[in-house]
Amino acid sequence: MTKPLILVTNDDGIVAPGIRALVEVAAELGEIVIVAPDAPQSGKGHAITIHDPLRLNKVQVFPGIEAYECSGTPVDCVKLAKHVVLKGRTIDLCVSGINHGSNASINIIYSGTLSAAMEASLEDIPSIGFSLLDFSFEADFEPAKVWIKKIMQYALNNPFPHGNLLNVNIPKLPLDQIKGFRMSRQAEARWIENFVEGRDPSGQPYYWLSGEFINQDHAEDTDVWALEHGYISVVPSMHDLTNYKALEAMRDIDHL
Amino acid sequence: MTKPLILVTNDDGIVAPGIRALVEVAAELGEIVIVAPDAPQSGKGHAITIHDPLRLNKVQVFPGIEAYECSGTPVDCVKLAKHVVLKGRTIDLCVSGINHGSNASINIIYSGTLSAAMEASLEDIPSIGFSLLDFSFEADFEPAKVWIKKIMQYALNNPFPHGNLLNVNIPKLPLDQIKGFRMSRQAEARWIENFVEGRDPSGQPYYWLSGEFINQDHAEDTDVWALEHGYISVVPSMHDLTNYKALEAMRDIDHL
Repeated sequence: MTKPLILVTNDDGIVAPGIRALVEVAAELGEIVIVAPDAPQSGKGHAITIHDPLRLNKVQVFPGIEAYECSGTPVDCVKLAKHVVLKGRTIDLCVSGINHGSNASINIIYSGTLSAAMEASLEDIPSIGFSLLDFSFEADFEPAKVWIKKIMQYALNNPFPHGNLLNVNIPKLPLDQIKGFRMSRQAEARWIENFVEGRDPSGQPYYWLSGEFINQDHAEDTDVWALEHGYISVVPSMHDLTNYKALEAMRDIDHL
Repeated sequence: MTKPLILVTNDDGIVAPGIRALVEVAAELGEIVIVAPDAPQSGKGHAITIHDPLRLNKVQVFPGIEAYECSGTPVDCVKLAKHVVLKGRTIDLCVSGINHGSNASINIIYSGTLSAAMEASLEDIPSIGFSLLDFSFEADFEPAKVWIKKIMQYALNNPFPHGNLLNVNIPKLPLDQIKGFRMSRQAEARWIENFVEGRDPSGQPYYWLSGEFINQDHAEDTDVWALEHGYISVVPSMHDLTNYKALEAMRDIDHL
């Protein structure tokens, strides 16, 4: 039997410890190809590069594994992987991460890691974004790796239909304290911004984004609840932003 | 009665003809403040600027109207407008656009114009993204302006709840050929990429994103159908990316 072909990407850049951990897991399950940003691309959301050319360099980062660094966004990486690097080949699974920090709840919409996974799903590639709730570059990925392997194996055995992806967040806990996983919906949380204002060396004002994550949605079926209670959260996600409830309520508007 | 406070932004940059047309309409309906990118930011999706400071300069682009150019993404513009420029004031409506080109269907996810509107909706500001199906900087915005005024008036009189926005696309037609508007869902269309490969002056390879918009979802309740049949499409949209159908189907997975 041929090994499944697994595309690995991320948004923290090709040399981040998180992608290294993910590569170690993925390499046990299939043939892997890496196309990842050449520099950190956190918070890039679903950005694509339209007005500039993209660079793609074959690099030797992981012994024996085909890897490319790309000058673009995480979404650009997936597009280039599909249409240039792996042109004509069927990609069985795309995994993105392991992100350094949470992508639960509303974070999915700002996250390059999850946008890369979503782009793969739009390309008919089953995909999963993985995030560990630890921003540190010295984070311990070992407990996460155990669960990521199980989830990847499940996904390889049970491919999801077009336009679907999984948003997987893993609590910062030792392996024996992770209680398992919970299928969840994204919590209705949000960021409250607080720009730090300052002056640059030439005296000009600047504003630097800061903020606090506020969750007021404490229902047990949410990803935030799962994470706060020692579970891995698994949110099936997709690209359709239609608000069907509002559409139903507004469908009868026939004049303005 | 005090005039409503309307925030105007876009992704084509503060000097694009589209935002000028939108400002002309908005100025008839309320007090307006403009915070828009200092350069084109198309395709930036929901990107935010985390690792760099942002610049915000008060500029005189529209006589008598408070306006700021921002060095960041469209989403950054909305955050700065809310938390710095208009700190403490209630914004009654945010309008983004008029985008030069369609943001129907899957385009919403790549669009800086719509991401700005979505960010406003996350900040509890009723918001609307407007797009005209004409990429030209010489586009005729006059027919669009007539309908945009009606839609803005409707939104000011009927504010939507938290987390909602409208994605409005306007066909490239003379006023008397626009049949009206249709409340729609986003069509299940997608882009098929085709990178243009070349060599730069120093002989290094580059890849430049190109692509074709493919729609295989021809249902009458979609935005693409509306636009193809001479209607303005109005899609109530939101930020929740949970795939509830898939969640229902996967809820019983209890082991991996």
